[in-house]
Amino acid sequence: MGKRVSDLGEFGLIALLTGEIKNNDPSLIRDFGDDTAFVRFGEKILLLTVDTLVEDVHFLRRYPPDAVGWKLVSVNVSDIAAKGGKPLWGLITLSLPPDLEVEYVRDLYRGINEALNRYGFSLVGGNTTKGEKICLDFPLVGEAKRVIFRDTPKVGDKIFVSGTLGDSRAGLELLLEERKDYKPHEWRLIERHLRPVARLDLSPVVEKYANASMDISDGFLADLGKMVKNFTAVVDLKRIPLSEELKRYCAERGKDPIEYALRGGEDYELLVASDIDLTPYGFTEVGRITSEGKGEIYTADGRRLDIEGFDHLRGSD
Amino acid sequence: MGKRVSDLGEFGLIALLTGEIKNNDPSLIRDFGDDTAFVRFGEKILLLTVDTLVEDVHFLRRYPPDAVGWKLVSVNVSDIAAKGGKPLWGLITLSLPPDLEVEYVRDLYRGINEALNRYGFSLVGGNTTKGEKICLDFPLVGEAKRVIFRDTPKVGDKIFVSGTLGDSRAGLELLLEERKDYKPHEWRLIERHLRPVARLDLSPVVEKYANASMDISDGFLADLGKMVKNFTAVVDLKRIPLSEELKRYCAERGKDPIEYALRGGEDYELLVASDIDLTPYGFTEVGRITSEGKGEIYTADGRRLDIEGFDHLRGSD
Repeated sequence: MGKRVSDLGEFGLIALLTGEIKNNDPSLIRDFGDDTAFVRFGEKILLLTVDTLVEDVHFLRRYPPDAVGWKLVSVNVSDIAAKGGKPLWGLITLSLPPDLEVEYVRDLYRGINEALNRYGFSLVGGNTTKGEKICLDFPLVGEAKRVIFRDTPKVGDKIFVSGTLGDSRAGLELLLEERKDYKPHEWRLIERHLRPVARLDLSPVVEKYANASMDISDGFLADLGKMVKNFTAVVDLKRIPLSEELKRYCAERGKDPIEYALRGGEDYELLVASDIDLTPYGFTEVGRITSEGKGEIYTADGRRLDIEGFDHLRGSD
Repeated sequence: MGKRVSDLGEFGLIALLTGEIKNNDPSLIRDFGDDTAFVRFGEKILLLTVDTLVEDVHFLRRYPPDAVGWKLVSVNVSDIAAKGGKPLWGLITLSLPPDLEVEYVRDLYRGINEALNRYGFSLVGGNTTKGEKICLDFPLVGEAKRVIFRDTPKVGDKIFVSGTLGDSRAGLELLLEERKDYKPHEWRLIERHLRPVARLDLSPVVEKYANASMDISDGFLADLGKMVKNFTAVVDLKRIPLSEELKRYCAERGKDPIEYALRGGEDYELLVASDIDLTPYGFTEVGRITSEGKGEIYTADGRRLDIEGFDHLRGSD
């Protein structure tokens, strides 16, 4: 038998695609391999991105539909925010099972609309089709004043993250327990998973000061590994920002909150390399780009960290 | 029990969505309800569209994967061509079953690449995820020199179509027979279904002369019904362009080729209203906008035609 998609994984499939497709479009600044594509249009820079939520892969039918709608918009806006950009126009594709309740769709739209209002842009078109599972795609066009890649930090840059890390993973675990009652701190973790907020508030800081920037979706270490693929970095694990909710969750279960923060995934916080101190803007400094290299990440006491992240196509979920 | 998605149908769902989402974006020229969205960006007009192919809804696993890739690009380019525009940048979302052969994906990409070369634009980004069925989304950004809606013909305009109609439907029926051998004329009909060619060659004609324009994807009558929703039109059935292949197919089975042409769907030819004679450009004149009205379409001998088309979400396929 030939190779299967699961043998290649998500990144292998993209590599196969980019190997097959040859671009010589002069308007193209960067295509695959970043949070968004960058294209030049007249005097302007446009950002193009698309992310998908698939039932039973990214969410379950029993999740609140308005949260699914909110998250669909937010994960795409997060990519634009990571490039220091501004979202302009969204499109939507809905593949829906014919026996799905209209009430579900109405709630889904309500969540989408809430997110559009929050982030201040418009849904301008879309498309519905039949499918066995709910499958939602949200192509998004944004604008940027300058080009900020994910993998162009400078040696000596400080590494910053926004917010707290690892909450979403804990929230997912709690959701999958299917309990009837949750404690308030557990609800807050669940909300972090169900209704992530794209850090569009920090986009102007990225635009001004970032040498490299991306959003944290596959887990801090996996994403930092992409940022520093041509560098060596040191991370001070004691500085990784953790919420009180996550610490309590882990204390109650004898787990290590740092592991959640390093490998959790779906944080939708920003990871930025800069030579400016960004802590006044609400970022936390967590490390430094020490030299050119091959993507090695070390702890402050010299231990090498394994950067392996989560891959949806290989994942065992 | 509450209402289901299948009770609303594709157009009802879009209406629900557009009712829920309120746009007050000054850059927006037109959102839902046309082949593409139109937005103003600086001095320019951008066209935004997205169309989806879902396994077992739009294609079967046994179809040649390169044809599926070709069609994915073509159906989206067709929307841009219908607006007299030019495709600029595409994105792709691939939801793939983990056990799908990599060879399949390679062939799919080959078809996509062939179409990109043919239509002369670039794929600039994308996204892969896991799904039970193959689900392909192709968001596309294009550019237009002026705004041409689908539903703004003028009274007195002639109605034109490009190419021949109904072939794709016959090709689909042949495909579903799953025969081992097909005759040459049958193969050509099958090709019309599997590998439609977007009429980007006619986009400059649309851009110059159309008062209203759209592509024919849901069937000629259903789509003409959308164009003339505020008008009354007359169609001369004897002028509807039919291929020799379709005539032979229908003759062999005692079927009426006009029915295929009127209601077939997936032709991806252009439907244009203009006060200029477009027959020198390869269009066929098939009717006329006779007055303002409520979407009635009559034959030359005064019989009213039923415009009901195919709806993927209600369809019994």
